[in-house]
Amino acid sequence: MNLFDLRSPDDIKALKEEELKELAEEIRRFLIMSIAKTGGHLSSNLGVVELTIALHKVFDSPRDKIFFDVGHQSYVHKILTGRIKEFKTLRQYKGLSGFQKRRESVHDVWEAGHSSTSLSAALGMAIARDLQKEHYQVIPVIGDAAFASGMSFEALNQIGEQQRNMIIILNDNDMSISKNVGAIQQTLTKMRVSKSYTALKSDLKGALSGNQAGNALLKAMRSVKNAVKENVIPDNIFTELHIDYIGPVDGHDIGELIKVFESAKQHQGPLVIHVITKKGKGYPYAENDKEGKWHGVSPFDIESGRSLSMLPHGHKSWSEIITDAVCDLAEQNKQIVAITPAMISGSKLERFFSAYPQRSFDCGIAEEHAMTFAAALALNGFRPFISVYSSFLQRAYDQINHDVARMDLPVVIGVDRAGLVGEDGETHHGVFDIAMLRSIPNLIIAQPKDAKEARSLLKLAFSGNHPFVIRYPRGSEAQSTECEAITCGTWVKYPCIAEAKAIVIAYGSDVDKIIAKAKVNEIALLVVNARFFKPLDHNCLDELAQMHLPIFVYETDLLAGGLSSAILEYGNDSGKDWEIHRIGIGDHFVEHGSLPNLRKQEHIDLNTLFEELLHVIR
Amino acid sequence: MNLFDLRSPDDIKALKEEELKELAEEIRRFLIMSIAKTGGHLSSNLGVVELTIALHKVFDSPRDKIFFDVGHQSYVHKILTGRIKEFKTLRQYKGLSGFQKRRESVHDVWEAGHSSTSLSAALGMAIARDLQKEHYQVIPVIGDAAFASGMSFEALNQIGEQQRNMIIILNDNDMSISKNVGAIQQTLTKMRVSKSYTALKSDLKGALSGNQAGNALLKAMRSVKNAVKENVIPDNIFTELHIDYIGPVDGHDIGELIKVFESAKQHQGPLVIHVITKKGKGYPYAENDKEGKWHGVSPFDIESGRSLSMLPHGHKSWSEIITDAVCDLAEQNKQIVAITPAMISGSKLERFFSAYPQRSFDCGIAEEHAMTFAAALALNGFRPFISVYSSFLQRAYDQINHDVARMDLPVVIGVDRAGLVGEDGETHHGVFDIAMLRSIPNLIIAQPKDAKEARSLLKLAFSGNHPFVIRYPRGSEAQSTECEAITCGTWVKYPCIAEAKAIVIAYGSDVDKIIAKAKVNEIALLVVNARFFKPLDHNCLDELAQMHLPIFVYETDLLAGGLSSAILEYGNDSGKDWEIHRIGIGDHFVEHGSLPNLRKQEHIDLNTLFEELLHVIR
Repeated sequence: MNLFDLRSPDDIKALKEEELKELAEEIRRFLIMSIAKTGGHLSSNLGVVELTIALHKVFDSPRDKIFFDVGHQSYVHKILTGRIKEFKTLRQYKGLSGFQKRRESVHDVWEAGHSSTSLSAALGMAIARDLQKEHYQVIPVIGDAAFASGMSFEALNQIGEQQRNMIIILNDNDMSISKNVGAIQQTLTKMRVSKSYTALKSDLKGALSGNQAGNALLKAMRSVKNAVKENVIPDNIFTELHIDYIGPVDGHDIGELIKVFESAKQHQGPLVIHVITKKGKGYPYAENDKEGKWHGVSPFDIESGRSLSMLPHGHKSWSEIITDAVCDLAEQNKQIVAITPAMISGSKLERFFSAYPQRSFDCGIAEEHAMTFAAALALNGFRPFISVYSSFLQRAYDQINHDVARMDLPVVIGVDRAGLVGEDGETHHGVFDIAMLRSIPNLIIAQPKDAKEARSLLKLAFSGNHPFVIRYPRGSEAQSTECEAITCGTWVKYPCIAEAKAIVIAYGSDVDKIIAKAKVNEIALLVVNARFFKPLDHNCLDELAQMHLPIFVYETDLLAGGLSSAILEYGNDSGKDWEIHRIGIGDHFVEHGSLPNLRKQEHIDLNTLFEELLHVIR
Repeated sequence: MNLFDLRSPDDIKALKEEELKELAEEIRRFLIMSIAKTGGHLSSNLGVVELTIALHKVFDSPRDKIFFDVGHQSYVHKILTGRIKEFKTLRQYKGLSGFQKRRESVHDVWEAGHSSTSLSAALGMAIARDLQKEHYQVIPVIGDAAFASGMSFEALNQIGEQQRNMIIILNDNDMSISKNVGAIQQTLTKMRVSKSYTALKSDLKGALSGNQAGNALLKAMRSVKNAVKENVIPDNIFTELHIDYIGPVDGHDIGELIKVFESAKQHQGPLVIHVITKKGKGYPYAENDKEGKWHGVSPFDIESGRSLSMLPHGHKSWSEIITDAVCDLAEQNKQIVAITPAMISGSKLERFFSAYPQRSFDCGIAEEHAMTFAAALALNGFRPFISVYSSFLQRAYDQINHDVARMDLPVVIGVDRAGLVGEDGETHHGVFDIAMLRSIPNLIIAQPKDAKEARSLLKLAFSGNHPFVIRYPRGSEAQSTECEAITCGTWVKYPCIAEAKAIVIAYGSDVDKIIAKAKVNEIALLVVNARFFKPLDHNCLDELAQMHLPIFVYETDLLAGGLSSAILEYGNDSGKDWEIHRIGIGDHFVEHGSLPNLRKQEHIDLNTLFEELLHVIR
């Protein structure tokens, strides 16, 4: 069938197994072709082609609620629910989202972007269904890495207690974004290859081959707790949680998947179906990727696998600039250790992990534990560097406040992907962290304008005795090995042209861009690099107030509670009579799209800044 | 021995088992006598008397690191480490903390106040020890409820992977603050009574009775994974996590505890010792308490068990006022469901849980899951009310932002214990939530000044279509069954005397107190009840600005990012020329003590407000 004719899951209900297999191959080819052009999440979607087809063949979406943890692996679901024509707009401004979105389709019954919310959501849906005395299936699909996160465990604990009907698809590819870690992972690996499960699997195949035998299996499944006692299935982590388990099932065998799902329909209580898939299945470069390079990709050349997006000469990603600086400091300072919640690749920590394996710790998708673990290392003589994406750092708010800051421990927190991130959209924009962290005592919060300042700030961070937050954006910057001494809490004034007519307080790499633009346009500005959000540079602010010029605070994050808010607090309390213009993101979530588009849309692009500037000073 | 002679754990090293038993009884008597006078955490401390004695008898604190999850059960530890004389100042301003504090003693090697940080801390300590090539024991003591929280699971997952030496004491009393919930709890209960474990327990006793046999056990423990295969110990949740397990052990049998701890010293890798204790042991009222009424207590009469603190006539706790209002609304609105993370008793939800058991959900200590679970119920047609203590709500920041607010779901979040809480101190003060939540789009954030306004705000909350945060403090207020219509985002002006000389913007129950004090002292004030932190009442602020009077914003929470910060943002952006004086808590953590003491210390008491007022207007 022509993929472009797919309107709804009904269109595949009548297809035979062979036709579904063909469909799977077509979808796989389409995904590779399409993502090669637009970029997007490749490996995880290639891994769930058969799984998603089988789910939509057996279950009745949107009545039955099928949804994907995180949601970046929902492309096949989008294709099967009539959205294939929009893939050319994938992750573009006003285009198809890279995640599930309720506004896109009635088949998107949950939204996420952060890991491990699907089991809590499933329990909420199942209870809502039961209270409303309705009857449908609730089917979260969750990867093994997300499964091992604390939030999933909290949900499983209550799911086991509540015993509501739900079918949890454990999509086990032994990878999160990069290679998985943790004891649970080892347990799953053992389960995947253990004899008893393999034996059960053949039993399952046999039992399901005919209708009568299938029914027998259903009975067995219903009384799986008895089965456990009879040692058909040994106790495992799921049975310990009072959740029935079947598996492992070959996630690329559509026929088997359909049979297992059909029988699961009759199951009473919560059931985990352990499905083994291969990330990147069908595209060799992605299949052989162990580091997660094919998790989220830019446009690429299909044949060579080469990325079509190139960094400017001499540039490195901000993540890499930061890691390089930490690595160089760690050579001298043996107390520096690195910690990541499952983001070795995303945060470009490979160099540290390979140079200092004994001092490197991947905690899995476990931001909370990772932060408190860092606090304990700091309390016991070490200098932890923990890097977390800004939007995922939200998971560790309490640990930063209660463990790190309250005990005033010298943890260096790298806030990666700070500011707007572009295509990943509203769940990933790192625009909250300044407001979130600014009110926490003892924290120092900084952002470098370039690689040299990054090194300088990190040097300061590791030599100080307080928690130090250094935030840096997605994207790249010119590399530098220079470093200079920085006094904590000091800003830098860059007069562009004598006799400034206005002051711009900015931060990050926009500082140099504003200076350059002012010079080109011969606009007499004093540009201030507010490289510390906390503490503020009160001396500098006092000087600025003395100049009696209009002051523009240019923020590329949320206005509420951000840098300008801190400046207004200080200005009020110190009796400043100044004219402050605030440019920043308003009180709303920001959608997805390219950075230039989003900046323009949010009125935080440099053109808007200069328009408003000129409006005031001319 | 005289308890008051105890200087350090060395003083009990030479005591014989019988003497230790006597010591336990003396400590228990002391705890009951002392807490009856000062108030404090009673039940949990009575439960760990023998356990703590045995730990300090066997291990070598502070070289060996013994610490308690949360820390409210560390009173016996404090007594054994030379702090008994300070118990008369327990939880008082500048007195002994109710939790572990590094500044109090070298024996306090970790600090907390929130649940489930001890395992992450233990892993950090163990790794620090190994990297430093030192040799000591790391011994976290953690209750079964804290054990079932997601953060503990994240830590266990990495503990199982890392295989560092540590001895985890699982203090299982089948209670958190109130009765425990969740599948894990059921599993632990099963383990406590299961035959195999009981059998193992007698084996253990036999094996440990002589030195030679003891050694044999040690060997067995070292190869506990083989033991599992031989079905001596069936697989359990710990073995699934690659953590060795022994137990259950009677937590009130000092002799047995000592033997088990002695043998555990030699164990390689992580080990869980499952200790069964009885909360409230030795004080019948506390022993028989199933609801958690004896968890944290006010001063009480030992003989009758009656609390010596009485609410004023007609008053109820704020928690109860809120629950009453939610219950009354839930009678009409069948879509209202109640959710709590293990705080039925603390948040006074008993009435809801008994009136609407089908619509009541205790998620265990699992704030993150609980919040997303609430989001899913809201998404599927229900109107969840979830109440969480302000300081514990910090655990759910990401779920509020990413799940509730981003999807704009009508969850009503009750923020209990908002503002300073007094004796529990810095880990429990609910002074961050306004700043933490204010920058999150779609949220409505309110605080009632009295019971009538609480009812009115809740009525508004459940009839609206957005997430609604209602915060209320510790303490009590006069009950009311009145209710009035409130327009979202509107403040109320209370002119006290004609021709006001100043404006005070305040919130919560201080509003009426300020009005009363102004009247008594004949001070001409306009008092504004800023019952919404978000949205602000811009019309009201515009009117206030027109009055050209000094404006005092009186905050009983953190200044940074709080209400006055929001007002300054609006004032700046709307070009107000006004004189704002801000009163609130500065940029630091606030210690423990009585509320009046703390308010005075923080310069947020009414006397300070009126002094500053008079200074300006006279």
